[in-house]
Amino acid sequence: MSIPTEQWAQVVEATGKPPVYKRIPVSKPGPNEVLVNIKYSGVCHTDLHAMLGDWPLATKLPLVGGHEGAGIVVARGELVKDVAIGDHVGVKWINGSCLACTFCRQMDEPLCGEATLSGYTVDGSFQQYAVANAAHVARIPKDLSLEAIAPVLCAGITVYKGLKESGARPGQFVAIVGAGGGLGNMAVQYAKAMGLHVIAIDGGDDKRKSTLELGATTFVDFLTSKDVVADVKAATPDGNGPSAVLLLAVQEKPFQQASQYVRPRGTVICIGLPANAYLKAPVFDTVIRMISIKGSYVGNRQDTAEAIDFFARGLIKCPYKTVGLSELPKIYDLMHANKVVGRYVVDTSK
Amino acid sequence: MSIPTEQWAQVVEATGKPPVYKRIPVSKPGPNEVLVNIKYSGVCHTDLHAMLGDWPLATKLPLVGGHEGAGIVVARGELVKDVAIGDHVGVKWINGSCLACTFCRQMDEPLCGEATLSGYTVDGSFQQYAVANAAHVARIPKDLSLEAIAPVLCAGITVYKGLKESGARPGQFVAIVGAGGGLGNMAVQYAKAMGLHVIAIDGGDDKRKSTLELGATTFVDFLTSKDVVADVKAATPDGNGPSAVLLLAVQEKPFQQASQYVRPRGTVICIGLPANAYLKAPVFDTVIRMISIKGSYVGNRQDTAEAIDFFARGLIKCPYKTVGLSELPKIYDLMHANKVVGRYVVDTSK
Amino acid sequence: MSIPTEQWAQVVEATGKPPVYKRIPVSKPGPNEVLVNIKYSGVCHTDLHAMLGDWPLATKLPLVGGHEGAGIVVARGELVKDVAIGDHVGVKWINGSCLACTFCRQMDEPLCGEATLSGYTVDGSFQQYAVANAAHVARIPKDLSLEAIAPVLCAGITVYKGLKESGARPGQFVAIVGAGGGLGNMAVQYAKAMGLHVIAIDGGDDKRKSTLELGATTFVDFLTSKDVVADVKAATPDGNGPSAVLLLAVQEKPFQQASQYVRPRGTVICIGLPANAYLKAPVFDTVIRMISIKGSYVGNRQDTAEAIDFFARGLIKCPYKTVGLSELPKIYDLMHANKVVGRYVVDTSK
Amino acid sequence: MSIPTEQWAQVVEATGKPPVYKRIPVSKPGPNEVLVNIKYSGVCHTDLHAMLGDWPLATKLPLVGGHEGAGIVVARGELVKDVAIGDHVGVKWINGSCLACTFCRQMDEPLCGEATLSGYTVDGSFQQYAVANAAHVARIPKDLSLEAIAPVLCAGITVYKGLKESGARPGQFVAIVGAGGGLGNMAVQYAKAMGLHVIAIDGGDDKRKSTLELGATTFVDFLTSKDVVADVKAATPDGNGPSAVLLLAVQEKPFQQASQYVRPRGTVICIGLPANAYLKAPVFDTVIRMISIKGSYVGNRQDTAEAIDFFARGLIKCPYKTVGLSELPKIYDLMHANKVVGRYVVDTSK
Repeated sequence: MSIPTEQWAQVVEATGKPPVYKRIPVSKPGPNEVLVNIKYSGVCHTDLHAMLGDWPLATKLPLVGGHEGAGIVVARGELVKDVAIGDHVGVKWINGSCLACTFCRQMDEPLCGEATLSGYTVDGSFQQYAVANAAHVARIPKDLSLEAIAPVLCAGITVYKGLKESGARPGQFVAIVGAGGGLGNMAVQYAKAMGLHVIAIDGGDDKRKSTLELGATTFVDFLTSKDVVADVKAATPDGNGPSAVLLLAVQEKPFQQASQYVRPRGTVICIGLPANAYLKAPVFDTVIRMISIKGSYVGNRQDTAEAIDFFARGLIKCPYKTVGLSELPKIYDLMHANKVVGRYVVDTSK
Repeated sequence: MSIPTEQWAQVVEATGKPPVYKRIPVSKPGPNEVLVNIKYSGVCHTDLHAMLGDWPLATKLPLVGGHEGAGIVVARGELVKDVAIGDHVGVKWINGSCLACTFCRQMDEPLCGEATLSGYTVDGSFQQYAVANAAHVARIPKDLSLEAIAPVLCAGITVYKGLKESGARPGQFVAIVGAGGGLGNMAVQYAKAMGLHVIAIDGGDDKRKSTLELGATTFVDFLTSKDVVADVKAATPDGNGPSAVLLLAVQEKPFQQASQYVRPRGTVICIGLPANAYLKAPVFDTVIRMISIKGSYVGNRQDTAEAIDFFARGLIKCPYKTVGLSELPKIYDLMHANKVVGRYVVDTSK
Repeated sequence: MSIPTEQWAQVVEATGKPPVYKRIPVSKPGPNEVLVNIKYSGVCHTDLHAMLGDWPLATKLPLVGGHEGAGIVVARGELVKDVAIGDHVGVKWINGSCLACTFCRQMDEPLCGEATLSGYTVDGSFQQYAVANAAHVARIPKDLSLEAIAPVLCAGITVYKGLKESGARPGQFVAIVGAGGGLGNMAVQYAKAMGLHVIAIDGGDDKRKSTLELGATTFVDFLTSKDVVADVKAATPDGNGPSAVLLLAVQEKPFQQASQYVRPRGTVICIGLPANAYLKAPVFDTVIRMISIKGSYVGNRQDTAEAIDFFARGLIKCPYKTVGLSELPKIYDLMHANKVVGRYVVDTSK
Repeated sequence: MSIPTEQWAQVVEATGKPPVYKRIPVSKPGPNEVLVNIKYSGVCHTDLHAMLGDWPLATKLPLVGGHEGAGIVVARGELVKDVAIGDHVGVKWINGSCLACTFCRQMDEPLCGEATLSGYTVDGSFQQYAVANAAHVARIPKDLSLEAIAPVLCAGITVYKGLKESGARPGQFVAIVGAGGGLGNMAVQYAKAMGLHVIAIDGGDDKRKSTLELGATTFVDFLTSKDVVADVKAATPDGNGPSAVLLLAVQEKPFQQASQYVRPRGTVICIGLPANAYLKAPVFDTVIRMISIKGSYVGNRQDTAEAIDFFARGLIKCPYKTVGLSELPKIYDLMHANKVVGRYVVDTSK
């Protein structure tokens, strides 16, 4: 397999300006890195944030975005033994980490102070050849579609992680706020595959239909419900509410509701990252009912392997639309206008 | 042992008015209850709240307050087998619970919907003879002072529970906010006995001296510190901050600081119950650093036994001042004026 | 509902002799007990052991056996509030416990030193009216068949408990040794409902067919396999073996094999209780591979509620054959001859 | 700092024959490795096994043994960032591992199939300059004695790990079998520092004296006790036995006793590795009492850091005798004759 010296990429040259589709050099992997021929990459809201620069953490510049890249290993450093040329792998949000600090040692690579972030602090998957730490690339079985798995590499892993962090056990109920969205749809499926019962919370009959089809036990429509708290509690057999809540879209209102309808001793998991938002809950109620409120970031490497395994068994479907990498700016425009339903995937060959 | 038909008690006859010291009838225990000759009772801020009626939960009326009662069993119902006449026991906040609901079945008796609360929904320990559910009274070894153990029965159990809920392991650091107060002093000692390192946070040189003497590793004075967050983080060897924070006095400021200096993956435990207070934390930081915020209520029966065991081994000292039960209104006055340092205990014989 | 003073029962009058079908008085419930009109009862191997007296624990005599009784509450003691006349309940192995000792306080009622055992230390469900501790009877939703749920009350709860104790998480593999038997069939279904992948181990094509139909991922036939250890490991994607093993029929050989094919850090759960058997495993291998070997007894009250909940959702089917209570001795004969396939249920009206 | 090209080392040239003290070349570290100037190394029974070749795992040959090496980093590979020249580090049993397999990803580096073992599959610390994976060397604060910490690097970490694996919580009891030996002495101190109560089990008045001085609550002398099981149970306040047992010297008898005196729901931790030994326990008792038997191997990197932290705080003392590296064969002779009390440390400069 011959590796070109130049490739197509989408490059953010100035924060806040759309990326430029151009030819750039192909990098060489370091001793513990691999070079991945990216075939497809999912597009995530985080990519838009990176371009806009509206998060409290600066990106590198110029920047190649993207962190849901699926492709084939074409070169590797001298220390890499467990990833072979030709292996299918994923380039995900955590591109690399030190693997030696107290966080890495305890399975929390995403908390490593030296972690590099694909498409944010290092170049990501919106190019044809991306470099990533070999110990961090996601292992993808060769019989899976690289196109279909792309959105799993961030969205799937993140919601799966959140469900694990919730501590909910098979047979218990979990409420998913924003169940009808892209992350929500995946969360419903992961939850079901984990033996959980899902109370889907979202607005509109389309979302009612889709979440129930994906396996939710109950749908609560926050647009038409007269009392969301009462309705969610009523959806559990004993009326005490769900053991866990997954907040995929945090706004003040859903959050405050969550701490009211979650079961005593239950856990509210925050995943969504709206700008400048605050968690807020009454102290008295939180203490007396022993509620936990917990932030869940992206998955670690083991979560990644597990999330892919659920996908490999056919338990997770994620609808997506594929366009050429060259059309990335159009997707950003749609995202900005809040017009994206489901997930976009870019094909790096176009 | 002859049981009188009448006894002395402090009775709240109208919410908001001081209790009246008077003679009232002695109750008879039901089939699964015991009658306890209360010798001493601690006085807790909750008793003041019960009298004032400023919590969002109504008390019974007329009300005998008190929920840190230590005494001797003088009668028992026909079903009681594991508590004998003459046993030393404690009447604590949870007077009884159903022992059969999903919360009781899972060791969370304090969350039971049928739980009765001593000195709040049933008469408590500010009388000479109190009734309590036999399965719920705290077992007190006979060689311990009933006077000295009284404050352990609520304050001690509560801080011990909070430390357990924090998940902090021996060798890790815990910050205790309000370490110089009554609860704080006990928390420092429990933490030390559990193999934890304590960062004591409070204001003033007296509190610095007392908390360091009780075993704290570091004291951070919030009155003089130029940057509490930085100082607390610097008190841990790797500068990442403590694994857990115990909030014994929740106000907005300490709470928001706690989520900033707690270690990534750390846990902030809320225990204090100021009226109308709210928890508040930035979503972004909570998610990215995977912080947990958790309410911890009073201990269950097993926590009670364990907390007493630490006391019995001489690891916990709690300074207290003893006055006659007849003088209870004076203690309330001092509390109201915020002039109580340490713990008051009332002697029911005076 | 009128309660008769006499009823039909199967009474073991001398250990080792078959029970006698006769009329005996109906008992009255104590203050915290209920009287249950047993409609159906499952028959378990333990009942045979109780009759034969071959376990190292003596039974009461004369003895009414049975501990999988499903029926309707017809009377209750004065303290019973959360079980109503007319409620459907199950009388299970743990008939009552003290609810106050260190084991009961920590959800381990089956380890309570004062626990009473239905059909062993107190009269059980092979009679028309049985007494049980109200806090311990299993709550059964009224829309479920009392006949079909009977075997869940011991076999179902026990295998569900074992799966919980194994610590296996959704997406992981569990090997079930004896998957083709009565307990095994239920274990396969519970495991699947909990999101686990099952490697069924048993002998013969009938069992292969039935376990695969119930949802097992792989079947390993110990009668024809040339290397059971290698075959079980090969049934997991990475070849490291299953995370957990459930031993439903412990003999020396399956046990020693289990510690060889279980994954490093895996757990072997022992449930079966053959007379005089010993666990045995090489120290070196157990230490180097960090294997856990763990005994799992019957479920507690919360496990009971959860196991019934899985059944109520239609996720667990248990084939059974129903005969009259009067025919119990014939079932014992079949059991003794090892001729029972699936579960027998007795109808107390015949 | 100039690095020599040759150095002194003890080299096993043929399995079963004593090591030869000779000059050998100094190795160069790979890209992710460090070269450590070993100052002191502890001597462990495993080193004797490596020389004798009596374990079911072959060593490299010729072999430089040793896996408790403490020294100073003198060179590092190009990828190493978090270990600096001049840092004090420990070369321990796990010299390196892949850091990417399912075991490494889940904090179980000792279970990694690619793990290299110091002084066994790669050259260890019985030389003046040893190579080790940078991510795996133990970080040692510069104010600690490299001589005194050497034995902590295997013995200390191993017993600390075993105590963690036991799940015993502060305030609970742990029995330590072999408490009077080298590992046992450290285990008593770690247990105490973790808030546990220790029942020391060993033989003889010297061991009684030493273990009680180190902080054990009770000593049970198996040489003079008429009923070890009864005596151990009696040493716990409620007579139910300790929550955990640490088996530092596994022979059939202590092991079988352990499963009898451990508390119901308790855990027996196996650490010792006698050749050809078997664990054995009655199935009935293990199931009915819900006992866990668990193998615990060496600690991972996080355990290592924590074990050193306890030492750094002055909570762990380990008596040792220091001799020159040249005298290693004499120590092996003493070990073989079972005449070693406490720990030997070799000084690589002599």
